[in-house]
Amino acid sequence: MKIHVLTTGGTIDKVYFDAKSEFEVGPPMIAELLKEAHVTAEVTIEPVLAKDSLDMIEADRQLIRERVAASEVDRILITHGTDTMAETARTLAGIAGKTIVLTGSMQPARFRNTDAVFNVGFALGVVQVLPPGVYLAINGRVFDAARVRKNRERQRFEEAD
Amino acid sequence: MKIHVLTTGGTIDKVYFDAKSEFEVGPPMIAELLKEAHVTAEVTIEPVLAKDSLDMIEADRQLIRERVAASEVDRILITHGTDTMAETARTLAGIAGKTIVLTGSMQPARFRNTDAVFNVGFALGVVQVLPPGVYLAINGRVFDAARVRKNRERQRFEEAD
Amino acid sequence: MKIHVLTTGGTIDKVYFDAKSEFEVGPPMIAELLKEAHVTAEVTIEPVLAKDSLDMIEADRQLIRERVAASEVDRILITHGTDTMAETARTLAGIAGKTIVLTGSMQPARFRNTDAVFNVGFALGVVQVLPPGVYLAINGRVFDAARVRKNRERQRFEEAD
Amino acid sequence: MKIHVLTTGGTIDKVYFDAKSEFEVGPPMIAELLKEAHVTAEVTIEPVLAKDSLDMIEADRQLIRERVAASEVDRILITHGTDTMAETARTLAGIAGKTIVLTGSMQPARFRNTDAVFNVGFALGVVQVLPPGVYLAINGRVFDAARVRKNRERQRFEEAD
Repeated sequence: MKIHVLTTGGTIDKVYFDAKSEFEVGPPMIAELLKEAHVTAEVTIEPVLAKDSLDMIEADRQLIRERVAASEVDRILITHGTDTMAETARTLAGIAGKTIVLTGSMQPARFRNTDAVFNVGFALGVVQVLPPGVYLAINGRVFDAARVRKNRERQRFEEAD
Repeated sequence: MKIHVLTTGGTIDKVYFDAKSEFEVGPPMIAELLKEAHVTAEVTIEPVLAKDSLDMIEADRQLIRERVAASEVDRILITHGTDTMAETARTLAGIAGKTIVLTGSMQPARFRNTDAVFNVGFALGVVQVLPPGVYLAINGRVFDAARVRKNRERQRFEEAD
Repeated sequence: MKIHVLTTGGTIDKVYFDAKSEFEVGPPMIAELLKEAHVTAEVTIEPVLAKDSLDMIEADRQLIRERVAASEVDRILITHGTDTMAETARTLAGIAGKTIVLTGSMQPARFRNTDAVFNVGFALGVVQVLPPGVYLAINGRVFDAARVRKNRERQRFEEAD
Repeated sequence: MKIHVLTTGGTIDKVYFDAKSEFEVGPPMIAELLKEAHVTAEVTIEPVLAKDSLDMIEADRQLIRERVAASEVDRILITHGTDTMAETARTLAGIAGKTIVLTGSMQPARFRNTDAVFNVGFALGVVQVLPPGVYLAINGRVFDAARVRKNRERQRFEEAD
């Protein structure tokens, strides 16, 4: 089974550039995570953006949508910042025949303690099994993109009312 | 959605007991992994065995089967040593109405570089979505329990002929 | 032998506050590092500042100097941002009878790959053995505070001309 | 300043060989640790043995002594298993003009939580500053080789009576 990964930035890829004493979105970590987990599934990776999701504008979401629609693969995993992940997910509604799963992390993958590795594993699993549609996969749960929100105070995703 | 986890030992839980200068199966790591990943899914954990899977005997596999059958939850995740994971999986055939997923790791969860965190995330994802049956979830792939084997030379799981 | 640690912030203590999607100086990491290393030396820890060292002003350096001078312990370890570590070190010149060692890191202690743990170990070692004076301990080397500078391009400390 | 490192095995270098489901002394980790810490000191590394220190025999200790004596460098760091580290240290008594420091770890360097990185940093620091003699550097303390023992129950080194 083929899975196509689109990377867009977010906390999961944040890195510390000491030369500037700043913390920024760095190169995508997902290839390294898949290698460390000895993944033998057929995965292709396409970097699309490298943005903090708070900085994403409508054109960014349209670009992501175009790349998803253009992919010849029907299992799509998107790594994304958590702050506007739900918003991007809703922009992806209505693409027929594709299972689209978004994930990300609250703590950078480069940290010693992080939710990134687990989340990528979780998302790579459910994208292979779920029927076509758009989903968020985080906090060990699968959320329908149409009914999910980030609760910033509690630092987790919840079903929206 | 409820998920019930049975732990049986294996490399994933190996720990280094310095007082004896030995490397042994230690306390299950899964609760710690779920906490680090901020998992909010409803997960219960039941320690069943703490064995290297090369040391498992038929009675061990029957015990695991009994515990699976006795569970009131129909989504079951089993952490297990990789060497005889496929054998245990085949012992679990024929339990009606339950989705049973086995996972483990090639490197201990306590290592800095390990496949354990990814694998547990992957398995916790697919167990929530797959239809009833028995599966191995490892190497970023879902295997049918009836047709899988560990290739020790290549250190990975493959579909059996 | 007693060692007194003053923490002032810097990259070593940087943390990712997801609720704000920012990377800031967090609580000092040194107590955790000493515990993980099973340190049985007699160490006391005093938080003085929690600043990126680029933001330190002259009053901050005077505060550090006052705390060093006021300590009853004559082996002093200071954790500090690397950007102005050499400058603070020079401010500490002339305090009689005390061995003062400054260290820090290029990558946060909370990262999976970091120089923080090694540097704190290194500094805690040399502070116990060096004669009175002010030193930087980083990059596996001991530098005289009067003749050291950070080479930002090469991301390392060097002897100044 | 030049430092010569001799590696002899021990917990610090233990690795998990999954193909055999065994935990053994693997390749020396120290080069990787020095690289991660951006060490610019002039360090040479010489692998001498790769043994659990409980398995060392008198001939092993004589070999280590010969290599120390033969080195043209007068600052020597030895990585060693903790169980008989004190015994080897005493075998090294009487080598004139050399500062010899032994270190190791209670948990493997490949673990996520380990004392190995701190200990190597600590030892690399004190070996540069101590006068000629033989020392153990562990638990954040410098011990005189003639008066130290491992307390296995408490999992730490102490001054012998």
